[in-house]
Formats: sequence, structure tokens, C-alpha cells
Amino acid sequence: MTFDRRARAAKGAARTLATASRATKDAALHAMAVRLLDAQEAILAANAADVAAAEASGTTRALIDRLRLTPERLGAMADGLRQLAGLPDPVGDVVRGWTNPNGVSVRQVRVPFGVVGIIYEARPNVTADAAGIALKSGNAALLRGSSSTLASNRAIMVALREGVADAGLPEDAVQLVEGDRSVTAEMMAARGLVDVLIPRGGAGLINAVVEGSKVPVIETGTGNCHLFVDASADQDMALDILLNAKVQRPSVCNALETLLVHADAAPTFLPRALAALADAGVTVHGTDAVRSYSDAVLPAREDEFDEEYLSLDLAAAVVDDLDAAIEHIREHTTGHSETIVTSDLVAADRFVAEVDAAAVLVNASSRFVDGGEFGFGAEIGISTQKLHARGPMALPEMTSTKYVVTGRGQTRA
Amino acid sequence: MTFDRRARAAKGAARTLATASRATKDAALHAMAVRLLDAQEAILAANAADVAAAEASGTTRALIDRLRLTPERLGAMADGLRQLAGLPDPVGDVVRGWTNPNGVSVRQVRVPFGVVGIIYEARPNVTADAAGIALKSGNAALLRGSSSTLASNRAIMVALREGVADAGLPEDAVQLVEGDRSVTAEMMAARGLVDVLIPRGGAGLINAVVEGSKVPVIETGTGNCHLFVDASADQDMALDILLNAKVQRPSVCNALETLLVHADAAPTFLPRALAALADAGVTVHGTDAVRSYSDAVLPAREDEFDEEYLSLDLAAAVVDDLDAAIEHIREHTTGHSETIVTSDLVAADRFVAEVDAAAVLVNASSRFVDGGEFGFGAEIGISTQKLHARGPMALPEMTSTKYVVTGRGQTRA
Repeated sequence: MTFDRRARAAKGAARTLATASRATKDAALHAMAVRLLDAQEAILAANAADVAAAEASGTTRALIDRLRLTPERLGAMADGLRQLAGLPDPVGDVVRGWTNPNGVSVRQVRVPFGVVGIIYEARPNVTADAAGIALKSGNAALLRGSSSTLASNRAIMVALREGVADAGLPEDAVQLVEGDRSVTAEMMAARGLVDVLIPRGGAGLINAVVEGSKVPVIETGTGNCHLFVDASADQDMALDILLNAKVQRPSVCNALETLLVHADAAPTFLPRALAALADAGVTVHGTDAVRSYSDAVLPAREDEFDEEYLSLDLAAAVVDDLDAAIEHIREHTTGHSETIVTSDLVAADRFVAEVDAAAVLVNASSRFVDGGEFGFGAEIGISTQKLHARGPMALPEMTSTKYVVTGRGQTRA
Repeated sequence: MTFDRRARAAKGAARTLATASRATKDAALHAMAVRLLDAQEAILAANAADVAAAEASGTTRALIDRLRLTPERLGAMADGLRQLAGLPDPVGDVVRGWTNPNGVSVRQVRVPFGVVGIIYEARPNVTADAAGIALKSGNAALLRGSSSTLASNRAIMVALREGVADAGLPEDAVQLVEGDRSVTAEMMAARGLVDVLIPRGGAGLINAVVEGSKVPVIETGTGNCHLFVDASADQDMALDILLNAKVQRPSVCNALETLLVHADAAPTFLPRALAALADAGVTVHGTDAVRSYSDAVLPAREDEFDEEYLSLDLAAAVVDDLDAAIEHIREHTTGHSETIVTSDLVAADRFVAEVDAAAVLVNASSRFVDGGEFGFGAEIGISTQKLHARGPMALPEMTSTKYVVTGRGQTRA
């Protein structure tokens, strides 16, 4: 099917979805979960073929691990759909409302975007996840996955569409977009058919979509996240947060990538921190000041402070004071999550006010910047742009609003 | 000055503005108003030169009227700045906040975008207006006006920057972007320096910015606004709303462009409506069904239903029923403001739910879809896109948010 036909079918389905009740949408999500588990054999067989092809082409183990499905992972995908059914429906929420002096009443009401395009990499679980979030928020989804997961995605999509149909909703509400790279270009050019594009994946993918798209984009994020240990920091607390933010799950966007230590704290903090990091298997890439505390610290190239390692590596520097820390962050931040550990109220206030990022944290691990940890129950990604949504994006962020204006014949003077 | 230097200066100024108190920003707005009136002689002289050049080059009277400044118009610009000073500051507003089970507290707080670029046509009043709205919302403004108003804009900008400096804020908070068309392209490419671009003007300008920009854009709107007179409409009310929406100010985006009449209402409504429209000087371009009621109705070409006349012209058609009206609107809407006049609750509900636009109106004139009429006190434009802001955009729509996460050393399990 051509992309244009697919997008028009999605637009038609979006009209039905926009006025579907929560009960109907939740029934569809439960049915999608059932169909997904019913199709386990077919989905795992298709996935095995994707994995075999990836192995034959020399794909790294880390990528193959993302690609591989197991009965447990499929179960988690089904659970995710059921959890979505339990969340409140953002559509129809009245954001605000008032009555004008002339008696005209105005309500601002949440409505779905319409058609949402999601472009993502080789993670077949995103197919179910993104389809579910889109459906719950009343949007039709056009899912553009990686060619390396095509067999898995096709098998998953068959099951999801059966579930949608089971609930009496149009199955074109969820569609896989297949084809070569030119199809991605078509998606990015489809103003008027696609209402918003969300790229999920590495920096290269995201930049290509942001730069090439005529359709509005929500940029989800790379995270070059910093931790600043202030002179007044409780150093036990700083050490806990440092290790948690770096080590607990290094491959994700809210993991720590750079440690900045106030010069006054460095002599007491860095020896302990570097030893603990080494014990945890972290390779530190530091400035000369950092290296003076440990021979195990590798020299950091200047461009290393712009790197999102996503691994057990950490850049580290000693800074003169709070101003220098804020200045370093301004220069290198990707605007995701930035943390200060301090006991000084003025320092905390200034850090919060002057650091420009989706999230700023005081005395807590950046790993909390996440839709699940925020209690949102679902997350389509973490926005690092300032327009529309910034930070973890959940169901309300998948909607727009509409003003409903009602009168009794009033006209403007 | 190169655009890059200007944008960097704006970014520096934006950091100061972001933490400026409301009192300081309001003082700047009052000082800008004073400086504008003090500079009346210089501004009017510069404007006279722009007007003379426009007249010599054969510019239309309507455009020259937009371009021309008078002491009254300058006074209105100053009043606009003072009114902004009276409005609440959106920056620092806590949108929501909660404490997670682990004791970590989260607040979502409004923050400025940073640097806002505004690209607009030959209306020198927009220079003061946009600079004021940007400043009040804590944003630095890069204003790209039309070359035909350059002398006026330069004189206005001198005064505005003096006012900004009077309050102790950096004068690079408001800047005029000069140069040939290549500068507009630089603005659209300045990801990382410019946080958001807002084009204000005709459809050609807006499309060029939306299609060409790598910086996120808020699309402000063309309005092909429809009025549907339902079978059950109170026809006196429908006539009032029709005339008000079409005639009260035909050159603006929330004015009516297309009339759709239910077939059952046509025999009684159209003769009265066509006579009243003719009396008001409106030229109606109708389908054959409409023309059967009056010889004065011109034949409507099919593409006329996509036209935003912005003049005393109106397209008109008779439709079989509500479904046909909704279908017609879906095909031709620009997503601005769509109106139904009806006494039927089911028809009103369906129209509100099924018509996809920034505003849907029941029994009220579309001329109410306006920041001033909504009581917002200021308006930077009316968004017809679904991302970030939809409908009239005021001070809160000129901000982003930031999550502030505070703990006592919590880490993620």
C-alpha cells in the first residue's frame, strides 16, 4: 500500500477514534493484549528470523538483545497494554473554562492530535507500546520501525489490529509503515495528513527527523546529564546519587554522563568517589585535576564532555564554583536532566533557576526523570524540546486542545 | 551585525530575562511606553519616509493603511505595553506538583522559551506589540519585519531598547533583524540559538516558514471560517451571527468566509440572508441552489470554497444535512474557527465533537475567537496547529515548562 493511502486510512480511523468512549478504547487495549499472547508462537517465530538475520549480518550483541523477544517480554508488552487501559482518558478533559462578561462561555478541552507518526529503531516492544499509547489518547498511529525488525513488527501488528477490530474500532487505527527510506521522507513531508511525528532512538535518527520534517516534530531526547557536587554537599549522599545515576542503568537517556566537583569538595570527595566508581566498573575520563587523585582516570578529551556514553564511562572535571558549574553545563547540556547535590539553599535555588533543562534535580538521582517514576503510568518518550511538551511525555502530552465557545446568539460589538 | 552575533546576544540577554522579576519586567514595559511617546517625532518622520516609498512603488491603499502610523496609533502601541505590565507574569507559575511515594517531590514550573523569533509583514505596531509580549514572558525577541517598514521599525526599536535599558535589563532583549532574504533563512536554520519561530502574516509567509524551518514553529493562522445554519436554527439569531461574522471586520482571520445552509432552512433563511448581505455590501459566490434565491449571487467556482477572501465576499452552499456540512468543513477547513447555529442539542454536540478546529462555536459569532475577547489581555497570534498551542496565544503560550525535582538523597531501586 502506498504511504499516501495508508495515511488517508489513518486519518479516517482517527475520526472514529476521536469520539470513541474510554470504555471502547480500554476494551480494545485488553483485546490487543489477548491477541498478542494468542499469537505468541507466530510472533516469536518471526522474531527468531529477525534475530537470525541480524546475527548473520554481524549486529552487535547489545542491539540483538534489544531486538530479541521472549515469552516474558511478550508478556510485559501485554501487561503494558492492560496498564494503559487502567489509566484515565485524557480526551475530553476540560483544561480550563470561563464565561465572558457578554455571557459567551469558553471551554478549552483536550482532543487527540489525529494521526501520530512514530519513527523508531530496532525495538519490537515499541510497536505495541506506541500503538497502545496512541490508541488510548485517541490518535491513529503510523509506526515506522526498523527494517531489521520487520518480521517481528508485522506479526505483532497482525495481533494488535485484530484486538482493535475486536472492540469494534477501525483496524487502520494502528498501522505499520513499510518500505525503503523514501517512505520516511514521505512521512516527514505529509503535512495535513500526519499531525505530529515523534522520533524515538539515537541522536542521528532524531536529528534527521527534526531537520527534515515539514510535519511538527516532538524531539525526544539524548541526555548528556550532569551531576554537580557542591562544596556544601553531604558527601555520602553525593556518592549514593553518583553511583545510582551512573551505574543503575547506564544505557538510558537519564543516566549520568558527566561529574562536576566543586574545588573545595574535590580533596575529600574525589578519592572516595573514584574508588567507588572503579569498584562499580566505571571508567572515568577526567581533567588533570581529577587525574591527580587516581592513576586509573583516563585523560578526557575536550569533546568528551559532549559525549553521551550510554555505557560505564563517565567524564569528570573539577570546577571552581557554582558559576563555573552552571557555565560548563550551559555549554555542554542537551537539556535533559541536570542535578546538584548541595546543602546550600542559595546554590540550590540558583541551579534550579539558571540551568535550562527539561528537569533540574536537587539531591535526587536523575534516574527519577521518567514517566513511570513520575507516576504517569505510561511514557512515549522524554522530550528535550521546549515546544508542546518538555520532559517525560505521557497521555496528556499526546493530545491537543480545542476551544468550545457557546452562546445564545451573541455578536461582537 | 551578523545574524549569528545578534542571536548570541539575544541568548545572553535571555538568561538575564529568565530570572528577572515581574516588577523589573513591568518597569521595562512602562519605560518602553514612555520612550515610544518621547520619540514620537522621530518615529512619525521615519514612518512618513516608509509611506512615501511605498506610495512611490505603487503599494495598495490597504497595505499603506496598515503601514501608516499616527499619533493615535503610537498612543495605542504605548497603551498596549502598559496593559502588558498589568497582566500576571506566567513565568514561575506552578502548573502542577506532587510528591512521589519515595518522598521525591516534583513541580512543573513555567519558564520562558529563551529566544523567540517573530517574522512579520508590514505592520510597524507589531514591533512594539511582539517585543512587549516577549519581554513580559521572559523571552528575548528577534524581530524580523518587512523591508517596507524598516525605517519605522528602526526608530521604534531605538525607543524600545532605551526603555529596556532604563529598567536595568539588557537592551539586546529586543532586537530588529535586518538584511536581505538570506537572513530569514539563517533564522529558520538557527536551531540551538532560536528556540521558537512565530510567523505572522499571510498564508505565503507562514507556509514558507513552516516548510523551511529547522527551528520549531508555531503556525499562526489563516482562517477559512464556516458558518452552518442548521434546520433547527433560530433564523433571526443566524442572521445576526452571519452579518456580524462576515461584515464587522472582514479583513481578519476569524471573519466568516463560507456560509452553509441546511436544505430545510434554505427556503426561509436564504432569501432574508441574501437580501441582508446585499444591503451590507457583501458579494455572495454561491452554488446553483443558492443562486436560485437571488440573481445577485455570482456562481462559485469549486476552488472558491478554499479561499480566504478577507474582503466583503462570501462563498455559500446549501447542504443536505449535518453530515454534509461536517464533511464540507472537513474538506475545506483551515482549522481556525467553525460555527453552527442550531437549537438541536444533538446537532450541537456532534458539530463540537466532529469538527476539528482550534475553536468550534455554537450560536455565537466567530469574531469572538480572539485573545482580547477571551479575556487574555494580550495576543501574539492565533495558532492553527495542534502542537503546543491551539487558538488564541497569550502570555502562558509564550512559555515552556521545567520539572524541578527535589529529594533528600533518594536513589532509584
